[in-house]
Amino acid sequence: MLKPLGDRIVIELVEKEEKTASGIVLPDSAKEKPQEGKVIAVGKGRVTENGETVRPELSEGDKVVFSKYAGSEVKFEGKEYTILRESDVLAIIG
Amino acid sequence: MLKPLGDRIVIELVEKEEKTASGIVLPDSAKEKPQEGKVIAVGKGRVTENGETVRPELSEGDKVVFSKYAGSEVKFEGKEYTILRESDVLAIIG
Amino acid sequence: MLKPLGDRIVIELVEKEEKTASGIVLPDSAKEKPQEGKVIAVGKGRVTENGETVRPELSEGDKVVFSKYAGSEVKFEGKEYTILRESDVLAIIG
Amino acid sequence: MLKPLGDRIVIELVEKEEKTASGIVLPDSAKEKPQEGKVIAVGKGRVTENGETVRPELSEGDKVVFSKYAGSEVKFEGKEYTILRESDVLAIIG
Amino acid sequence: MLKPLGDRIVIELVEKEEKTASGIVLPDSAKEKPQEGKVIAVGKGRVTENGETVRPELSEGDKVVFSKYAGSEVKFEGKEYTILRESDVLAIIG
Amino acid sequence: MLKPLGDRIVIELVEKEEKTASGIVLPDSAKEKPQEGKVIAVGKGRVTENGETVRPELSEGDKVVFSKYAGSEVKFEGKEYTILRESDVLAIIG
Amino acid sequence: MLKPLGDRIVIELVEKEEKTASGIVLPDSAKEKPQEGKVIAVGKGRVTENGETVRPELSEGDKVVFSKYAGSEVKFEGKEYTILRESDVLAIIG
Repeated sequence: MLKPLGDRIVIELVEKEEKTASGIVLPDSAKEKPQEGKVIAVGKGRVTENGETVRPELSEGDKVVFSKYAGSEVKFEGKEYTILRESDVLAIIG
Repeated sequence: MLKPLGDRIVIELVEKEEKTASGIVLPDSAKEKPQEGKVIAVGKGRVTENGETVRPELSEGDKVVFSKYAGSEVKFEGKEYTILRESDVLAIIG
Repeated sequence: MLKPLGDRIVIELVEKEEKTASGIVLPDSAKEKPQEGKVIAVGKGRVTENGETVRPELSEGDKVVFSKYAGSEVKFEGKEYTILRESDVLAIIG
Repeated sequence: MLKPLGDRIVIELVEKEEKTASGIVLPDSAKEKPQEGKVIAVGKGRVTENGETVRPELSEGDKVVFSKYAGSEVKFEGKEYTILRESDVLAIIG
Repeated sequence: MLKPLGDRIVIELVEKEEKTASGIVLPDSAKEKPQEGKVIAVGKGRVTENGETVRPELSEGDKVVFSKYAGSEVKFEGKEYTILRESDVLAIIG
Repeated sequence: MLKPLGDRIVIELVEKEEKTASGIVLPDSAKEKPQEGKVIAVGKGRVTENGETVRPELSEGDKVVFSKYAGSEVKFEGKEYTILRESDVLAIIG
Repeated sequence: MLKPLGDRIVIELVEKEEKTASGIVLPDSAKEKPQEGKVIAVGKGRVTENGETVRPELSEGDKVVFSKYAGSEVKFEGKEYTILRESDVLAIIG
């Protein structure tokens, strides 16, 4: 199991198709292109300068859209994951 | 449905015409050119270093002007959206 | 009507003449050249990390000097405006 | 009259001579070269993230040394001024 | 013994194999490639602007994934270690 | 007299010799080279985001080592001074 | 004597050998290479935006590992020192 630290989350990638299951298609554009995935694990949240922990908005199982270039890829027990900060997630698909 | 996180909002683009419905025309200029859209969904707001959540000023349905180069484009269920931070919105058209 | 967000303001440009109505002349200099305008609308103010809203110093109708390169230009109902942050305004002419 | 905003001040330039009235001479050096002027108007002060206003140290009439490259130049009613932030002022000459 | 300061930790590297003991394989990708290691020592934590110490999430003995390019390498009493900030650790393997 | 603002101090340079009075020699190195001087005047201190003034550590008459490239040079009443921030001072020689 | 300001410390360098007294060897690597030294003097600590002084973790006599490229070198009374911020120290060797 991968337990992310702080405001990080672990995401399982949704296979890239021309059109994904939930209907997100990446348009031809100079703008940043987002990617779709499913949240596998969520950290405890970031700690502010006040010493308070900001609880994550995301929960395990959420389907999300996130920046294609954000985070780090790891393979763990044969599966590929992306670990990124919650702030790199654009929206929940729900 | 796309539910944006934090201080992000989801915007439906207003079709680019020489002159838009509400009369915004992009002038010839070296300055940053804004774009017009309609707010489809609003996040819970950003969390400050004090641990307080700053409620968004925008509401669903607001017509807004925002920076053309801000945010990320996604297509979702056949429609094109822009996801950006509320701070990238210049003004409400009302 | 354009309602600016946060610490933004909407400014109506004063026509560029060699010498403006209130007597501001842009000198030949390598320094940043300011521009003159009239405040048309004022946002609610910026929200600090403490969650407090800092009320704007400017009011509608104020004549101001601001940085020529600050903000975004929009045309709205046939008129040209500049939307910028209050912190880009140098001084009130009064 | 020019009323500066926030932590800005308005300065009337002291004419550049080889040696100024109060005896400041700009040395030949690769370092930042300061300039001399007189404070004409002072803003209310900057507002911190705590929502508190930090009162300016400077008062009208102070003679100051400031960075030559700081601020913006404006001509107003035939006279030339520099508008800059108090933090760009190095010292009071007194 | 190496006692790290502040929010730093000391990590003993896990030997690079095609596939590590716990099954992490570095994929071919343009993204940042993480590395696996074991936590040997943990600092007291970072001190926020409020003067509070944020206790580390990690403990001695934790197996972690961290950015390959983060931190500094030292050899100490014949063994190789990496010293980095807790915020450079992506996740605990557990 | 030069009265520095905020966290600035005024320093009188110690003449550059191969070896200075107090024995500081600038070594041949790619690192930042410090310079020696005497504190002539001290500002009230910087004001934090909390609105508190942090009293300077330095006092008039302190002999200090500071970064050669920090601050601004001014000549005042025939003498050469450097005005810099207290945070650019490395150490007191005492 | 050199009395460092704020969060700075004065370090006496340990002579560079292939293998130092305490056994640190700098490996061949693209990563930042640390250096070993002994703490000679410690400042009062940094002052946070809250106006609180964060007491240093280090004490005189501590043997430390620090970034080779951090800080400034000074020679004082014939001996060579490095003055750097406590945050540039990686770990205490103890």
